[in-house]
Amino acid sequence: MGKILDCIESPRDLRSLTMDELNVLCREIRQEIIRTVAKNGGHLASNLGVVELTVALHYVFDVPFDNIVWDVGHQSYTHKILTGRKKQLCTIRTQGGLSGYPNPKESDCDPFHSGHSSTSISVALGLANAKNLHNDPGHVVAVIGDGALTGGLAYEGLNNAGRFPKNFIVILNDNKMSISKNVGSIARYLAHIRTQPGYLKAKGTVEGILDHLPVLGDPISNVLQKSKTLLKQALYKGTLFEDMGFAYYGPYDGHDVEQMISVLQSAKEINRPVLLHVITAKGKGYTFAEKNPDAFHGVSCFDIKTGESQASGENFSKVFGKSLSAMAKKDERICAITAAMESGTGLVGFHKAFPDRFFDVGIAEEHAVTFAGGLAAGGMLPVFAVYSSFLQRSIDQVIHDAALQNLKVTLAIDRAGVVGEDGETHQGLFDVSLLSAIPNMTIFSPAYHEELELLLHQAIYECPGVTAVRYPRGGQLYQPENFTITGNSFDEYGDTEAPVVLVTYGRIFSMACLAAKKLQKEGISVRIIKLNRIHPVDPQAVSACMNARHTFFFEEGVRQGGVGEHFLYLMYQQNYAGKTTLQTVENRFVKHATMRQSLAELGLDSEGMKNRIQTEYLK
Amino acid sequence: MGKILDCIESPRDLRSLTMDELNVLCREIRQEIIRTVAKNGGHLASNLGVVELTVALHYVFDVPFDNIVWDVGHQSYTHKILTGRKKQLCTIRTQGGLSGYPNPKESDCDPFHSGHSSTSISVALGLANAKNLHNDPGHVVAVIGDGALTGGLAYEGLNNAGRFPKNFIVILNDNKMSISKNVGSIARYLAHIRTQPGYLKAKGTVEGILDHLPVLGDPISNVLQKSKTLLKQALYKGTLFEDMGFAYYGPYDGHDVEQMISVLQSAKEINRPVLLHVITAKGKGYTFAEKNPDAFHGVSCFDIKTGESQASGENFSKVFGKSLSAMAKKDERICAITAAMESGTGLVGFHKAFPDRFFDVGIAEEHAVTFAGGLAAGGMLPVFAVYSSFLQRSIDQVIHDAALQNLKVTLAIDRAGVVGEDGETHQGLFDVSLLSAIPNMTIFSPAYHEELELLLHQAIYECPGVTAVRYPRGGQLYQPENFTITGNSFDEYGDTEAPVVLVTYGRIFSMACLAAKKLQKEGISVRIIKLNRIHPVDPQAVSACMNARHTFFFEEGVRQGGVGEHFLYLMYQQNYAGKTTLQTVENRFVKHATMRQSLAELGLDSEGMKNRIQTEYLK
Repeated sequence: MGKILDCIESPRDLRSLTMDELNVLCREIRQEIIRTVAKNGGHLASNLGVVELTVALHYVFDVPFDNIVWDVGHQSYTHKILTGRKKQLCTIRTQGGLSGYPNPKESDCDPFHSGHSSTSISVALGLANAKNLHNDPGHVVAVIGDGALTGGLAYEGLNNAGRFPKNFIVILNDNKMSISKNVGSIARYLAHIRTQPGYLKAKGTVEGILDHLPVLGDPISNVLQKSKTLLKQALYKGTLFEDMGFAYYGPYDGHDVEQMISVLQSAKEINRPVLLHVITAKGKGYTFAEKNPDAFHGVSCFDIKTGESQASGENFSKVFGKSLSAMAKKDERICAITAAMESGTGLVGFHKAFPDRFFDVGIAEEHAVTFAGGLAAGGMLPVFAVYSSFLQRSIDQVIHDAALQNLKVTLAIDRAGVVGEDGETHQGLFDVSLLSAIPNMTIFSPAYHEELELLLHQAIYECPGVTAVRYPRGGQLYQPENFTITGNSFDEYGDTEAPVVLVTYGRIFSMACLAAKKLQKEGISVRIIKLNRIHPVDPQAVSACMNARHTFFFEEGVRQGGVGEHFLYLMYQQNYAGKTTLQTVENRFVKHATMRQSLAELGLDSEGMKNRIQTEYLK
Repeated sequence: MGKILDCIESPRDLRSLTMDELNVLCREIRQEIIRTVAKNGGHLASNLGVVELTVALHYVFDVPFDNIVWDVGHQSYTHKILTGRKKQLCTIRTQGGLSGYPNPKESDCDPFHSGHSSTSISVALGLANAKNLHNDPGHVVAVIGDGALTGGLAYEGLNNAGRFPKNFIVILNDNKMSISKNVGSIARYLAHIRTQPGYLKAKGTVEGILDHLPVLGDPISNVLQKSKTLLKQALYKGTLFEDMGFAYYGPYDGHDVEQMISVLQSAKEINRPVLLHVITAKGKGYTFAEKNPDAFHGVSCFDIKTGESQASGENFSKVFGKSLSAMAKKDERICAITAAMESGTGLVGFHKAFPDRFFDVGIAEEHAVTFAGGLAAGGMLPVFAVYSSFLQRSIDQVIHDAALQNLKVTLAIDRAGVVGEDGETHQGLFDVSLLSAIPNMTIFSPAYHEELELLLHQAIYECPGVTAVRYPRGGQLYQPENFTITGNSFDEYGDTEAPVVLVTYGRIFSMACLAAKKLQKEGISVRIIKLNRIHPVDPQAVSACMNARHTFFFEEGVRQGGVGEHFLYLMYQQNYAGKTTLQTVENRFVKHATMRQSLAELGLDSEGMKNRIQTEYLK
C-alpha cells in the first residue's frame, strides 16, 4: 500500500486529507525523520516534537505567501519534507546536501536562515512590518521554544512585537527543555501555567460570575461589586505574555493535529499579536528519545532498534570538564557557567560535584559573561564554557563587563574552528578575530587533550584578566611520536635548519605534521612553529622564523584580524627578507560537510598544505 | 550658615541627620549637581532624578560592605558625592578628574565599572552569588531604570536572579524615559501599573475578603469559595515581576526620602529576590530639565539661569538624519531604526516625516539588527543608526542575521573613534576590527559632512550586503582649501612625488593635513592617502604607496584587526621595500578627556603625527 507521504508534493496537498489521514501522515513523517537521523546524525528529539504542529501550520498557512519563521531552525525537518524537499532529506547535513537549518537558498518556503537561538520573533516582526508597509496581506508566524525564550533577544522581540497593530502569531513550543532541562524563572513560570490549566480555564467562569453578581445589601457582595473591575483586570492580565501585549491562548496539546488546526485558524483571524502556548514532547514517537531527549537532541548515527549511538570516546569537551573539576576540588573559588550547554560543554560531572558553583543561565550568553564579571569582582574564578559561534553574542560583555576592569574571567571556547555538519551558522571561525581586538586579552589554542589541561591551568592561574582557551569539536588528531607537549607559548618541530617554515596553531598542527611527512618524501624538509598562546603573539616565535626563505601560515579561522596577518606583519616589521604565504578562511561563510571535508575545502588538510607549499615554494 | 553637605564625609554621617535635615541635604546636593553639570557638561536629568533614592540607599545600606550597582552608571553623581568624592566632583568628566560613571579604580564604594545599559542585574547577581559562596552577609542592590529594562540582558538577569535563594534587591527606577520617551510593551505595562495604584492596593482588601468569606448556602458564594484559591493565585501573580520570581512592591514615590528609607529597610529583611518599583521624575528640581528631560539627559555646559546650552551647530548626526530623510522621500523602502537614540542619532526629523518607517526599538541593539534583517528579507532598505560602542552588542546578529544571507542592511555608526568626556565605556574604537572580520562587509569612513552624504548613498545603493558608514561624534574638522571631496574609495592629497606617505581615514585626515603643513615648513613634504572605503581596502590605494620610502599609517581605532596592519601587510606582500610605521590605539582602553586631548594622548593629533614622522623618518 502506498504511503500518504508519497502523495504530498506541496503543503497544499495537506488540505485534501481527512483528519485520520493527517494522523497517519504524521506517523509516516516521524518514521522518515528517525530513519534519516539514524543514518546522517542530526537533531532528532526536537524534530519529533513538532511533527503535528508543522503539519497543522502548513494546513492553515500558505507558504511562501505566509511566512513561518523557525527559531533556532534545527526543528525544521518536517517543514522541509512538506515543502518539496522530501527526496533530498536523505542528504541532510552532508556535503552538498540539504542544510540542517532553514535556508532561503534552498527554498522560498524558508524566509530566513537561522541556527542561533531566540531570533525568530525579531525576524518575524521585521517580515511582518515589511508586509505591512507593502500592503501585503500575508501572515507571519514565529515558532519559538521555551528554551529560546530564556534569551534576551526573544524578550526584546516580544517587547517590540507586542505593539504591532495587526495579526502576528508567536507559537511558544513548550517542551520544558532547551537542550537540557530548561532553567530560570521563565521556565518555572511556564511550568506554573502548564500545571494549573484550571487557573486559566477558571478565568471564564469567574468573569461570568462577576458579570452577573447582583447588587445586594450584603456587605460582602458590595465590596466584591466594587472590586469587580479590579479583579477582572487581574484576571485578564493573568499571564506575562498578556503583560507584554499579546493575546494569550493555551496551553494546547501540540500533538493533537485537529485541535492545532482549529486553534491556528482562529489565531489567524485575530487582528493583533497572539501567543499560542503549545505543549509538545521532545522525542515524541521514538521511545529512546522520549525517555532521554537530552541525549537525542543532537546525535551522531545510531541504531534505530537499540537507540545506541557510536561510542565517541574522549574529546576536548570531556577533558575540559574533568580538568576544571580537578581544579575546583582544590580551589573553592572556581565556578563553571554554561548557557544551556551543560552536556555539550562537558560540565555534567562538575555540576554533580559542585552544584553550588555550577550555573546554567539558560540560552543567555550575554548574561553569562556579565554575571561572570560580577562573580570575578566578588573574588571568584568563573569559567564560562561556550561554543565559539555563540560567544559572538557576548562581545560587548567581554569588552565592557570583563576586560575593561581586567577581571579574572576565563572563556573556555568549545567548537572553535570548523564544526562540520551544523554548517554556516555554527562555524567557530570568528572568535580569534573578535577577541584579539579587545585590550588585555590572552588566547590559548591547544591541539591535544593534555595541552588543554596545561593551558587551561595557565589561563586561570598565570594570566591576568580575561583569558580564553579555544579548542575544537571532537577529539585530538594525529600526534607525531617525537613531538612533546610542553605547554610553552610555542613549540618548534621538525628540521631546525629547513628553509621552509610552517606556522600554525590548534588542531591543524596535526595536518601540518602530516604535510611535512609527505613533503619529506618529496625531498622538501620543513620546520613547524606551533603557537600555543596565539594572542598576544610571543615575539620569540616571530624571531624563530626570521631566517626562513618562505614562511607559510595556516590558520583555521578568518583572515581579517586573525593571527596570521598579524604574525607575518610583525616579521616584515623586523625586516624579514623571505616570502610569506597565508592560508586561511577568506571572506566567506563555510557550508556544512564533515570536519575533514571542510578542512580540505579550505586547503587546511595535509594535502592542501602540501600542495600550497609545493606550488608556492617551488615557483 | 554652613551647609549640611559640608558635614557629610561618608555615608554613615547620613544616619545622624533628622528627616528634615535629609530633605535639606537633598536640595543642597541638587544645587551641587546643577552647578557642576552647567560647568562641565554631563548627565543632568537622570542625576537630579535619583537624589532622594541615593540618599535613602546610603542611609539604609552600608557600602562597601553592601554593594550598590548602578545600571548605566551615569546617574551616580549623588553616590559619588556621598562616598568621599564631593570635593573632586568639579573635575568630573575632565582629563585626570572623576569619571562620569562608577569606577572601582576611583572608590571601593563602586563595586563595578558601568556605562552600557542593562548590565546591573547580572553584575549584582554575580556579586551576590560570590558573597553567598563566601558566607558574606552583605547585601547587593541593583538600581535599574525602566529604559534599561527594555534591554534583553536585563531580562536574562531577571530570569536568573528570580531563583536566587536569599535577599537580592532590584530597584526599578521608573521615570518613563530611556533617553527619549521609553517604548515597547514593557513601557506600556509599567504605565499600566503606575496609573492603576488602586489595582495593587486592592490586592490586600480582596484577599482579606476571600479569607473571611463564610461558607453559605448561597450559590454565588459557594462558587466564589471554590474559586478562592484560583483567584488568590491570580492576585498574587499580579505583576510580570512576580511571574519572574520577585516579590514586587510599589509603586513608591522616589522623591519621598522618609518613605524610601522605610521601604528599603523592609526590603532588606526579605529573604528572597525583591523588586521595588520607584517612580522618579527625570530632572527633578530644575525646571528646565523637568520640562525637557530629553534635552537635559546628556548636556554640554549651559547657563543655569536660562537653561540655554552653547549652540553646537552642524554635526555628523544631523547630516546623517537629513541625508537619510532626503533618500526616504524618494524611496519608500528606506526605514530607520534606533535603539532609544532618536535624538542622539539625528533621527527626529525622519521620525516626524516618516512615522511608519521609523522604529525606536528601545535599548535593544540585538533586536535592532535582527529586526533589520527581517525588514531587509521583506524587501525594505533598513538603516540602523547606532553608536559605535553600543553596536558591540550586535556582533552576532550582524554575522548571523544579516551578513550570512548578504541582506541589504546598512549600519550608520555614530560616535566612531574617540568620544571624549564619556570615556572608556563609550569609546568607538572597536567597530572596525569587529566588523572587518565578518564576510561580505563593506565599511566607509567619511571625514566631512558632504562625504557622509555621498558615502551613505553609496552604502545603501551601490554595495551588496551589509554596509557600514562610520562617523565621529560632533562635526567635521579642518578641510584644506585645495582638497576636493570625491566620494571615491580613496583620495590622494599633497606632493605626489614625496618620499613620505601618510595613510589614514576618517576625521584624523584633518590632523594629517595640519601635520603636513607643519612638516612643509620644516622642509619635509608628504603625500596623504585618505581612505574613504576602509574595508575592503582598494588595491589601488595600496599600489599608490608602493614607491614611498616610508609609509606612516595613522588609525583612530585599535591596532589588532584594524585597517592599518592589514594595509601594510598587503604592501609588504607586494614586495614593498620601504619602511612602515603604524600609529594606532595600542592594547588599552582610553580614559575620559576632551576629544582633542584624547587624540593628542594617542599621538593622533597633528603635533603627534608630525613628531612621529620627524623621529622615524629622519632617524
